[in-house]
Amino acid sequence: MKLNDLPTAPATAWTLARRAERMNPSVIRELLKLTERPGVISFAGGLPSPSTFPVAEFQAACERVLQDDGRAALQYAASEGYGPLREMVAAGLPWRVDPAQVLITTGSQQGLDLVAKVLVDAGSRILVETPTYLGALQAFAPMEPEVVGVASDAQGIAVDDLARAQREAPARFAYLLPNFQNPTGRTMSEARRAAVVQTAAALGLPLVEDNPYGELWFDVPPPAPLAARHPEGCLYLGSFSKVLAPGLRLGFLVAPPALYPKLLQAKQAADLHSPGLNQRLVAQVMQDGFLDRHVPTIRALYQAQRDAMLAALSREMAGLGVEWNQPAGGMFLWARLPEGMDAARLLPRAVDKGVAFVPGAPFFAGGPDGPEAARSLRLSFVTASRGQIDAGIAALAATIREQRQG
Amino acid sequence: MKLNDLPTAPATAWTLARRAERMNPSVIRELLKLTERPGVISFAGGLPSPSTFPVAEFQAACERVLQDDGRAALQYAASEGYGPLREMVAAGLPWRVDPAQVLITTGSQQGLDLVAKVLVDAGSRILVETPTYLGALQAFAPMEPEVVGVASDAQGIAVDDLARAQREAPARFAYLLPNFQNPTGRTMSEARRAAVVQTAAALGLPLVEDNPYGELWFDVPPPAPLAARHPEGCLYLGSFSKVLAPGLRLGFLVAPPALYPKLLQAKQAADLHSPGLNQRLVAQVMQDGFLDRHVPTIRALYQAQRDAMLAALSREMAGLGVEWNQPAGGMFLWARLPEGMDAARLLPRAVDKGVAFVPGAPFFAGGPDGPEAARSLRLSFVTASRGQIDAGIAALAATIREQRQG
Repeated sequence: MKLNDLPTAPATAWTLARRAERMNPSVIRELLKLTERPGVISFAGGLPSPSTFPVAEFQAACERVLQDDGRAALQYAASEGYGPLREMVAAGLPWRVDPAQVLITTGSQQGLDLVAKVLVDAGSRILVETPTYLGALQAFAPMEPEVVGVASDAQGIAVDDLARAQREAPARFAYLLPNFQNPTGRTMSEARRAAVVQTAAALGLPLVEDNPYGELWFDVPPPAPLAARHPEGCLYLGSFSKVLAPGLRLGFLVAPPALYPKLLQAKQAADLHSPGLNQRLVAQVMQDGFLDRHVPTIRALYQAQRDAMLAALSREMAGLGVEWNQPAGGMFLWARLPEGMDAARLLPRAVDKGVAFVPGAPFFAGGPDGPEAARSLRLSFVTASRGQIDAGIAALAATIREQRQG
Repeated sequence: MKLNDLPTAPATAWTLARRAERMNPSVIRELLKLTERPGVISFAGGLPSPSTFPVAEFQAACERVLQDDGRAALQYAASEGYGPLREMVAAGLPWRVDPAQVLITTGSQQGLDLVAKVLVDAGSRILVETPTYLGALQAFAPMEPEVVGVASDAQGIAVDDLARAQREAPARFAYLLPNFQNPTGRTMSEARRAAVVQTAAALGLPLVEDNPYGELWFDVPPPAPLAARHPEGCLYLGSFSKVLAPGLRLGFLVAPPALYPKLLQAKQAADLHSPGLNQRLVAQVMQDGFLDRHVPTIRALYQAQRDAMLAALSREMAGLGVEWNQPAGGMFLWARLPEGMDAARLLPRAVDKGVAFVPGAPFFAGGPDGPEAARSLRLSFVTASRGQIDAGIAALAATIREQRQG
């Protein structure tokens, strides 16, 4: 048998789908490569602190699950997810959810992929906050939507502009991240939530609510989810990545009963089901109220890290014209450079000084939104140690100072 | 705060994507519900035998991985997959593959989803065998292809008809399952493989080769993969589901270098990455040549089960006009009822007699392909015990006998 012995064959005519022609390497992924030099303190990543992963609990759970239920854990399983886990998810939500509405997903990223498959045609409008989570834009992109950025402020999306955008042309949904948003860290206030839901309901605008960070509050829990106020009008996405561990790739989606069967079929087509072993491990670890004991330790750690970053910013940025917010939870802080400065251009110089961040512009849907976007940057306060936070913010301030003088 | 207290809101205007309007519950899934009565012997499922899952090895691997590398296993990770696993995959393939061409997927089902996202526009042609794997049709469906069934025989796809279909209008790819195909159990001969590759290369027709069952051969290994003969013209999909365990949801995709970046971007958008814990478990279990010791035990078991089913068929079906093939590996056998009989109509009667199978018609792309399709059925020989095989085939024969007389 001779392999590869083909008579002067023409090159195979791989033809890309239109959506693939448009796919580009993630801007952030490319930027992050810059930051991967040894010795660089990174505020760039979106990784939870690995010190919070309950490794010992997962060890015990592995032993137990494989011992008691190993063959079932390793076999094909239902696309809906593992029953006991779906029940725990439903019981843990602050509104009345039937476990039959819960679909376990391979991370909440997959939830976004399924939502787009079921709700988005080429050219369908999706309304998003400005800025918004880049991973969601990437998940929606293969379905070729028209993504429309809606004006937003420190409280979240602006209700007037949301209504205006929906009246202009009906959207398939508005994608909202009300708690400790990625990238800004901002939280939608109680009043804003009430107004958003009322507006959406009045206009028949469906909402997709993404809540990976909601449990990571510092002083007080955030207001109730949008879905709790209007369950029929919301698709709700949650995740185990920030409260247990992201490497298991488990999230969930809570769907109005009318949408569930389509999402389930999309799930089945996408990967049959999420890993049964992982679902059992999470269910095993979560039983007996483990999260009630564990999540407060994550909150305390992240709050202390946020405080360290706020203190370092106050100390180091004095007089530089830099502004930043004070997130009430989550993993990220949002800052703005002095007028005329560009975060993407600052990044290589900052890396030269040993510190990295993510420029804000890529998070603005439809391209950078003028000088405001170019000046913004995202700082994660959860991965670096407190000593690194001090040193990294000092290095960032030194870079900005040089830039102002240069 | 009053929840759900909205002023006479209209129902939310959820608008489904065109593809979702067309999604229907899997015919087979609906049929399988029929078969889930207690006491029914099922030849219907596509599940590997759980007795083959190396539970003890996974227990040891869990302990080791979480002990040595727990925090990395539980953290976010690269979309490409876990490096050592990608190297093992590349090294295990019978042609020269760079680990950089290997993308770890959440089961090979996800590989099919990614392939469709990158290569299929609405209306793009995909050429498939007749019959073909239903899960692939489901994975491709969200991208709205035109699926074209190509004539096939006991050796696999018919080369003349493949060439004719490609000349009629160029397809984005032909989807082929050369080894122990689902649903028929048939294997593409050496000569047919050579002819398919030569034809595809001559016409510039890309091939997508799906090989979940290739390791499950009984007497001799199947001929070399299509991808080994024409690596630039083939996308190759593999799986750990049949040689280790499906519940971990791990497969892989080997892509020509020109396509890899797009598939990687689609993967990142779909679920960021496949679970790092699962990838490390598989790599840990596979090291030191475990599969070389383990897979022969699966082959021996499945071969004995196939032999038991063939013997039972010879014994019980004598004189009934039923035909069946003799698969050289895999999990399935394909049978044909006497002329005029319909497998879907037979199924409820068979279930009444305590035995279940999958009717063949749904596997024919573009709807049942006439009386040939309606007469066919798929029998899995791997899940039922040998005693159940004897009893189940006897019950099936009794059903057919009654039907002939009825």
